[in-house]
Amino acid sequence: MKIALAQLNYHIGNFDSNVNKILHSIQQAKSQGAELIVFSELAISGYPPRDFLEFTDFVDECGVALEKIAPHSTGIAAIVGLPTYNYAPKGKPLFNSAAFISDGKVVQFIHKTLLPNYDIFDEYRYFEPNRHFEVIPFRGKRIALTICEDLWNVQDNPLYITNPMEELKSQLPDLMINIAASPFHVSQADERKLVLRKNALEYRMPLLYVNHVGAQTELLFDGGSLVMDGEGNLIHELKYFEEDFRIVDTDDLQVHSSNLQSDKKDEMALIHDALVMGIKNYFGKLGFKKAILGLSGGIDSAVTAVLAAEALGAENVYNVLLPSRYSTDHSVNDAVKLALNLGMPYDTIAIEKGFFALEETLLPYFRDLPFNLAEENMQARIRGVILMALSNKFGYILLNTSNKSEAAVGYGTLYGDMNGGLSVIGDVYKTKVFQLARYINRNKEVIPENIISKPPSAELRPDQKDSDSLPEYHILDEILYLYIEERKGPKEIVALGFDKDLVGRILRLVNINEYKRYQTPPILRVTGKAFGMGRRMPIVARYLS
Amino acid sequence: MKIALAQLNYHIGNFDSNVNKILHSIQQAKSQGAELIVFSELAISGYPPRDFLEFTDFVDECGVALEKIAPHSTGIAAIVGLPTYNYAPKGKPLFNSAAFISDGKVVQFIHKTLLPNYDIFDEYRYFEPNRHFEVIPFRGKRIALTICEDLWNVQDNPLYITNPMEELKSQLPDLMINIAASPFHVSQADERKLVLRKNALEYRMPLLYVNHVGAQTELLFDGGSLVMDGEGNLIHELKYFEEDFRIVDTDDLQVHSSNLQSDKKDEMALIHDALVMGIKNYFGKLGFKKAILGLSGGIDSAVTAVLAAEALGAENVYNVLLPSRYSTDHSVNDAVKLALNLGMPYDTIAIEKGFFALEETLLPYFRDLPFNLAEENMQARIRGVILMALSNKFGYILLNTSNKSEAAVGYGTLYGDMNGGLSVIGDVYKTKVFQLARYINRNKEVIPENIISKPPSAELRPDQKDSDSLPEYHILDEILYLYIEERKGPKEIVALGFDKDLVGRILRLVNINEYKRYQTPPILRVTGKAFGMGRRMPIVARYLS
Repeated sequence: MKIALAQLNYHIGNFDSNVNKILHSIQQAKSQGAELIVFSELAISGYPPRDFLEFTDFVDECGVALEKIAPHSTGIAAIVGLPTYNYAPKGKPLFNSAAFISDGKVVQFIHKTLLPNYDIFDEYRYFEPNRHFEVIPFRGKRIALTICEDLWNVQDNPLYITNPMEELKSQLPDLMINIAASPFHVSQADERKLVLRKNALEYRMPLLYVNHVGAQTELLFDGGSLVMDGEGNLIHELKYFEEDFRIVDTDDLQVHSSNLQSDKKDEMALIHDALVMGIKNYFGKLGFKKAILGLSGGIDSAVTAVLAAEALGAENVYNVLLPSRYSTDHSVNDAVKLALNLGMPYDTIAIEKGFFALEETLLPYFRDLPFNLAEENMQARIRGVILMALSNKFGYILLNTSNKSEAAVGYGTLYGDMNGGLSVIGDVYKTKVFQLARYINRNKEVIPENIISKPPSAELRPDQKDSDSLPEYHILDEILYLYIEERKGPKEIVALGFDKDLVGRILRLVNINEYKRYQTPPILRVTGKAFGMGRRMPIVARYLS
Repeated sequence: MKIALAQLNYHIGNFDSNVNKILHSIQQAKSQGAELIVFSELAISGYPPRDFLEFTDFVDECGVALEKIAPHSTGIAAIVGLPTYNYAPKGKPLFNSAAFISDGKVVQFIHKTLLPNYDIFDEYRYFEPNRHFEVIPFRGKRIALTICEDLWNVQDNPLYITNPMEELKSQLPDLMINIAASPFHVSQADERKLVLRKNALEYRMPLLYVNHVGAQTELLFDGGSLVMDGEGNLIHELKYFEEDFRIVDTDDLQVHSSNLQSDKKDEMALIHDALVMGIKNYFGKLGFKKAILGLSGGIDSAVTAVLAAEALGAENVYNVLLPSRYSTDHSVNDAVKLALNLGMPYDTIAIEKGFFALEETLLPYFRDLPFNLAEENMQARIRGVILMALSNKFGYILLNTSNKSEAAVGYGTLYGDMNGGLSVIGDVYKTKVFQLARYINRNKEVIPENIISKPPSAELRPDQKDSDSLPEYHILDEILYLYIEERKGPKEIVALGFDKDLVGRILRLVNINEYKRYQTPPILRVTGKAFGMGRRMPIVARYLS
């Protein structure tokens, strides 16, 4: 059977745009002789629609959109994801569904059984799990259609007590199709292939997998839709981080390397491509073109600026150097050099006038108390005022330049350098930011070498270095990884051989700064556990220590 | 049977403190001849523990705490809530459990069946639902023990397909006990009594209900534990917003008004008491004593200051008046009068120096562009810098003074007046803020009358009034209520008789300001739908219009 895989970038709630994309792909598939076309999970609404699903108007619009699409399923069938109503007297009001449309009308709905409700997922907030299993008969084949998580219950210690494919297999299906919205993190594509291969091998039949692509605020969908044969061989692999479309013949599944993605990307290439897509879609879907950021001469803002320039065009990234009395000349020079390297507009706006005025204003209250964190933060906040004033005046979106290590230990000023509409590298540990800078410079020196090689400093007091108040980043990042990604408690981390006092000190910093992270912008997610919607800790609590 | 109800204020993750409270109450109950004592849901960990539940160390500590408590159950049995491991090979790793301890050891675990996963609740993120139902035999009685939501599936259109009491009733229980963590909103206590009464009437047996009390960051638990007889009559009612303890004899359930709360509180009294408790516990559990806030002379900061003074003591609330060149004399005078009325410390710190310096700094970039939102926001942000500098220097927590109407339509400056560690009235619409001010003044003029009666203004440009850019608050708040609390879409709201353009304009403001609310402090929750963890909307999306 000739089946088209449509890997598209949807816009949540933009029904006109989503329907047009779907109709365009149906037309394309028809004209190339496909018998069936498959779209991803909740394609009509975009994923994740979150609490839009609590609005009847929104769910009704999804139904209206399906009614617009159905008449185009003549000479071709289609599988399209959308939320539908649960009309049973008991249970949650909605299903996460796939409509099978054919001969111009809706033939069958398949509902999702396993509803992910961990990390960034909240599906049980809205949906009732499916309990009725049926294959889709189509042109002499029996299709086992499942939705994303439905195929993921194959671990040793499964999260769900039901396994949809176990229910479906008694109906002797010929073919598995899975429609997904599987968000990217650095090892996700590999995990995904493992899981899909397990299914292909277990049920001994071909598997077609269609994923979302594109960014939805902080969530990055990497695409990589694929087809495996019944022995788990990868036969087709669609593009990563781009829309893609392919027609496959399920009766002729042969390995041809030309049907796979040739360039196996390493971690830094993946993070780079994901973040560029994240910035691009954030601006594009909001209807903005221009970014502003504070370029300090440090590595974090340098990497952020380069990524923004790739996403938006260098001419659309306005860099503001905001030196204070404690800024070094080399910082300013390095920042200018970077801006010139890429051809990004920049200005240098000294913060001394504002800082001096506010120091004077506060003098009667601070009296002779020593210079401390209060004055350090004031500088960062005055920079925030200037950047936001420019943003408000000219319609730029401010990019936040904090990295994950800083965000973790609270090494940043709330309402100062923690400002921004979007955090670009807030899910990238400092040690990885260095690697990302090296990756950016892989062909030529885009980021001046001095920015990468000098010791990190906030330059908020004379001769300040990050290492004055933080452990070396390679140790810090290891401990943070164990605590945040691996959810190891202090006892477990110490048992792995780390110094007890150091672990205690770092975890304490992470915990007491929960209130700061509560107020930070959305962070583009590239790991299995990013700060934000996927990590939900109380602010007021006694933490483990 | 003599049963003690222990309504306590727990501290999430503070096992020593929680265990001590529990042991103290066991001792008290024993000395007064109780045969059983009941603590609330997840008493050992505090509620909600959120992603702490993903840490083995944390769940293990809960088990250790139970082992410390169990030996004290001699001569008395106890029911104590805690998370426990699910040892089955499939399913989520934990249960939300109640331990029945007696004769010094753990006799039985009962697990929660219905896991709320809407609004502020995320229980299916962590817990596997119970599927085995058994009563607890104790001293000749059979106790049907359930946990919070387990009794709430009594609507016409139930959210869950299982009803635990329907499963338990075949075992012929004599008595229902429900342990809860049921957060406050203005109509919650009434709804709760209705639901509990439905159960008492349906199953024709007495019902004991033990709730949490106290604030956990933004969530406010109001207590109000109670006992009903088998005809649904309210026999005992514990205090609201305070810890309480009572021993009841289930064999002698007679209505005595002295066992109920005599002062039936109206909406404003409830909101007032809830917010005062919220501030008090936020500071107390974090170990802070002193608050700072910007006192503008407007009603929002006035009400916030009064609530803070009640919670922390007037001497611990530092009010800073931050006039700009656009501030009116009456604002400054009104603010001073309020501070003097309550005996709160205050200072007046003009922002002109800082504003002038930053205007000068930006002049080469702004050139001759007209004064607009950019300059308005600059003033709010300079105030933010000054307040945060004082907060950093002296260890105050900054209180946010935004109301819900402002937060909804984005009428506030991000990194300016939207700053703060805690939003006190961010879930109170402007029209209700006026009512709250009247309530505060019910016995004498605490808030100067002029603050209440003058037209609201941000005073960021000459002769500015809120009504220049917003509809009248009574209309605005009605539409906001329908959209936010009732989740009515634009079509539905217009169908209720509101002007289409006005609805479109207001909803658009709510939607485009999602990015601002993403970065606001936790908001004390007093309605059924507050901004924050209970309302999860995408930032990047096309909204209904």
